Amino acid sequence: MHPKDLTVSRITGDRLDRVEARFAALLGQEAVLREGGLFREFHDPFEGPGAQGHQPALVVQPDSVEQVQAAVRLAAELALPLWTSSMGRNYGYGGSAPVLDQTVVLNLRRMNRILDIDARQGHVLIEPGVSFAQLYKALRDEDVPLMMSVPDLGWGSIIGNGLEHGMGYNVHGDHASALCGLEVVLANGELLRTGQGAISNSPLWSRHRRGFGPALDEIFKQSNFGIVTKAGLWLMPRPEIFSIGTIRCDRQEDIGPLLDVLRSLLLEGVLQGVPMIVATPDDDGALDDGVEPFTMRNLKTVLRPGRWNVRIGLYGRADMVALRRKVLEEALTAIDGAELELRTYPGTAGPDEVEPRDYISAGIPNQVLLERLRAVFGPGFGHMDFSPVLPNTGEAALRLDKAVREVAAKHGLLGPVGMLLNPRSMVAACMLMFDASDPARVQAARAAIRELYARAAEWGCAPYRAHVALADEVAATFDFNDHAMRRTYTRIKDALDPAGILSPGNHGIWPSSRGG
Amino acid sequence: MHPKDLTVSRITGDRLDRVEARFAALLGQEAVLREGGLFREFHDPFEGPGAQGHQPALVVQPDSVEQVQAAVRLAAELALPLWTSSMGRNYGYGGSAPVLDQTVVLNLRRMNRILDIDARQGHVLIEPGVSFAQLYKALRDEDVPLMMSVPDLGWGSIIGNGLEHGMGYNVHGDHASALCGLEVVLANGELLRTGQGAISNSPLWSRHRRGFGPALDEIFKQSNFGIVTKAGLWLMPRPEIFSIGTIRCDRQEDIGPLLDVLRSLLLEGVLQGVPMIVATPDDDGALDDGVEPFTMRNLKTVLRPGRWNVRIGLYGRADMVALRRKVLEEALTAIDGAELELRTYPGTAGPDEVEPRDYISAGIPNQVLLERLRAVFGPGFGHMDFSPVLPNTGEAALRLDKAVREVAAKHGLLGPVGMLLNPRSMVAACMLMFDASDPARVQAARAAIRELYARAAEWGCAPYRAHVALADEVAATFDFNDHAMRRTYTRIKDALDPAGILSPGNHGIWPSSRGG
Repeated sequence: MHPKDLTVSRITGDRLDRVEARFAALLGQEAVLREGGLFREFHDPFEGPGAQGHQPALVVQPDSVEQVQAAVRLAAELALPLWTSSMGRNYGYGGSAPVLDQTVVLNLRRMNRILDIDARQGHVLIEPGVSFAQLYKALRDEDVPLMMSVPDLGWGSIIGNGLEHGMGYNVHGDHASALCGLEVVLANGELLRTGQGAISNSPLWSRHRRGFGPALDEIFKQSNFGIVTKAGLWLMPRPEIFSIGTIRCDRQEDIGPLLDVLRSLLLEGVLQGVPMIVATPDDDGALDDGVEPFTMRNLKTVLRPGRWNVRIGLYGRADMVALRRKVLEEALTAIDGAELELRTYPGTAGPDEVEPRDYISAGIPNQVLLERLRAVFGPGFGHMDFSPVLPNTGEAALRLDKAVREVAAKHGLLGPVGMLLNPRSMVAACMLMFDASDPARVQAARAAIRELYARAAEWGCAPYRAHVALADEVAATFDFNDHAMRRTYTRIKDALDPAGILSPGNHGIWPSSRGG
Repeated sequence: MHPKDLTVSRITGDRLDRVEARFAALLGQEAVLREGGLFREFHDPFEGPGAQGHQPALVVQPDSVEQVQAAVRLAAELALPLWTSSMGRNYGYGGSAPVLDQTVVLNLRRMNRILDIDARQGHVLIEPGVSFAQLYKALRDEDVPLMMSVPDLGWGSIIGNGLEHGMGYNVHGDHASALCGLEVVLANGELLRTGQGAISNSPLWSRHRRGFGPALDEIFKQSNFGIVTKAGLWLMPRPEIFSIGTIRCDRQEDIGPLLDVLRSLLLEGVLQGVPMIVATPDDDGALDDGVEPFTMRNLKTVLRPGRWNVRIGLYGRADMVALRRKVLEEALTAIDGAELELRTYPGTAGPDEVEPRDYISAGIPNQVLLERLRAVFGPGFGHMDFSPVLPNTGEAALRLDKAVREVAAKHGLLGPVGMLLNPRSMVAACMLMFDASDPARVQAARAAIRELYARAAEWGCAPYRAHVALADEVAATFDFNDHAMRRTYTRIKDALDPAGILSPGNHGIWPSSRGG
């Protein structure tokens, strides 16, 4: 690691007053937050009382692309970094908190326009302040025959989630890949449109991924090379019906055959979307208990039954869904005692018709999970997420399950284990749970996550997302040829943002002016 | 356009002798070509006799990553650009010919190792010299239950085709997206591995697209930012059966409803792969005739029957294929007279069992198309390809068909029209055909292509690939915000290759040292 003085940019006192005045003059006083409840939303929500580091100094909220360009130019003039967030709901990884302490946060919630909905071609064009819930409402209000893929909570930014490589569960559950064509404000204030959008009068910006020459969309995801201000998003056609439910397996050793069945059906195209496996320990032993109320007994009121419980969804014409189901049923006969339970809804079914436990697979944005966790664990409920990319094999699953339970227990935390299945890999989704009103528990969680990162590194694996406080550590895992990847990132960062104005330290990417 | 002196790097005479000697000393004499039949393969095959410009000065063929690194370092020392090709079979766009005249061509044919085949997870790891034909043979020899997607001709490099955004017709027919994880030699000779490969001991390099931070694979496609020396490739599992054939529609006005049916079934996931529509003019009028033997009468012996003829393939379990077919048949009843003809083969069927006209959809690499065209049009047969990305609508298809026929006829060329269908766009594949032994006909083809580019630009569209002689013109179409995309490319090029050693001018990308 390069040494970095993470405090060098802190703005405080008189300087902060002057900076606030400049941004207020530029964007309007209503666009600037420095204190109060709304300002608090841009802190790490689970940092604990009296937390040091990663604090926003000021939040500025432009309401147009032109205002974002103006804000970036002002930041360059003031030699002041801007940390960008879309909605700022990235709670398991630090929310809207910046890597550099006392940074100005540029938040895009006020840019929440839905600019185009194309039902026939299956895409929309949106701004970063559009949440999953907002787009869902717009589609329902106009009875648009498209179906969304949503993550576990519906309040976040669609673009923000996609840019963070976030995952949902439907056909376009790889949310980064569901984005098509970006508008980006570069560090010099210049506006770039990627893909077909680089042709001024293109009819295909949201419809075809590439242009002529290298496609640049991916370099603006999980990066600090620009600020995305618009994106196309692909959606699936509303199916005739969907069947949602679970596969339950009760034995520890079922995970290998279960993964074999699921991988094979995903590769074949029989299963759709992103099946999610949740592991529930089959003992109630003290080993797995965290500090009260974070006990296994309480956790089990939230988890689905069975040692391994797979949430799946089938979508499409009724005859295709029936056949997919039949193939799945046949394949599951290879696993003694595996139970398949599916509920079928018409494609038009909304929140009034669909059972709340099926909302996510039905593409209905919701807050059910967070509400249940807060009900069980109290208002202090916090979590930090451990999410390594892993081989989709039984061996890898058991190793993950063991590591998370051991490390969580050692630190007095609860650590349910989830796995999101791709055809050739899986992404773990493990929430380490703790009482975020207690600073000691917050520190315990960070220590546990670090330990788990070290375990994953032994397997040749790394998390696909990480808390802002741990980004440099994760980036260091990508060490091939003495960290050639980090050097390449720094070269591109220097080319596009030599002064390091945009989100310095995001995903461990620094300009050379800051030791990158 | 920026003015560029395209002759400034030409190496000739004594200097060429010295350069040849240095490369021979570094890579071995067998790795250096300066004349003879094999050397001729690295010219534009359809440039015509006595062609000026875009000539290779020398061809060097390293046989290992270390030799590529050494060659790049030597080129930097000599301040000499290297034009990279994999197999060099990109015939419709100039083959292995460099943008800058008298450039050293770095050709990767000798790097043809298949490093890993994973039948269970559906991927391989290969070098750039591995052709479609070579991989197919390896899979057949070992009876590996995977099925390939192949383009129209099987002699080309799999990696080269994917890096050029090439397309095939099966489930992974978007060949650029089928690549997963690259090894890249940068302009400074450094080795980079992308995605999970940036973790030294990763088990997932060929299995998971992204790492931590921005995914860089895409910036090494259609670019000159590095030389790709290894790539993962995703393949589909060998299906139980596949059904291959055509949909034929005879009326001009059928194209709109036909595209509606196909788009809808692609979006729904009923149709798989990349259906291809070929248009045959329904008149034999002189309007469409080129210079003998390039007549419509001769062309019709190659084209499939019907005004619009769609080549499709269905793959998978027998029951799933049967249902997909039933849904397609029902949907086609909306078009009077549409005829569906499908031939069904077991998934294991190879070239001895499959009809040659079904080879491509069956994933069997072959040279059938080229052999037939040469048989009909003679050994001088040449083509230049016009391949704009277009809306997948009847209006766009008819506009394309009309423009290609008009412009081809005006220049005495034949211009069959093909369209490769994605769910939300289509890519035209129009071969302008001519006698490449006649320099005047070569010039006519280039003039026609330029006229077609101008037409496409009026529609807001641009080709997805272009002949090396026309790359700058196409790049200029991407004009949003006064060519912000080109400026961004140049910034990245300057960051990764400031001296412009690697393939200068590829896809219109130049370093600022050469006016980019």
